[in-house]
Amino acid sequence: MVKLIYCISKKPEMSLDAFQAYWRDTHAPIAGAIPGLRRYVQCHVVPEAYAGDARPAYDGAAELWFDDIDALRQAMRSAETAAALADEANFIDHTRVASFITVENVVV
Amino acid sequence: MVKLIYCISKKPEMSLDAFQAYWRDTHAPIAGAIPGLRRYVQCHVVPEAYAGDARPAYDGAAELWFDDIDALRQAMRSAETAAALADEANFIDHTRVASFITVENVVV
Repeated sequence: MVKLIYCISKKPEMSLDAFQAYWRDTHAPIAGAIPGLRRYVQCHVVPEAYAGDARPAYDGAAELWFDDIDALRQAMRSAETAAALADEANFIDHTRVASFITVENVVV
Repeated sequence: MVKLIYCISKKPEMSLDAFQAYWRDTHAPIAGAIPGLRRYVQCHVVPEAYAGDARPAYDGAAELWFDDIDALRQAMRSAETAAALADEANFIDHTRVASFITVENVVV
């Protein structure tokens, strides 16, 4: 299995609550329809990270598992991925994102 | 449960193989000893991401789960975390890291 980690940031004009609600309620079923997706976890930054003037490095990370690199590449070319990317414009600031493809090594 | 995501980069002078081997074989038991750690997964970027002149955003991400924010904060003050941070100097470029504390929302 390979895992795509996609660190994301909210659009500056969105509140944290609006960003998290959109990601969870509207975007999740769209991205969740990507073919070949074995597991999909949204990691939402905790409210405590925004105390005072504090700002986290990213506002969250999406994690998407596929059987292997070929399955991931095929998924990236799908209409469902195109739809998910189009929807990202509604809540993600694409100037502050980072993605990378990994293999897990479970230590504990 | 909360999950700390720690995106990391290798020291520029290290090969990818040496970085991954050190992280997996030497650093894992040191970081794995942090008290209160419920789960610890290393996500190693796949070799395909380095084809030609390509360079991924990060060389990997460590994920550490704790019961809650208080358990994480207590763990961060431990001698074991101090030892893990000291060991990071052997393989991590601290000018290219990012960390944030999250809560998981499992979609698929």
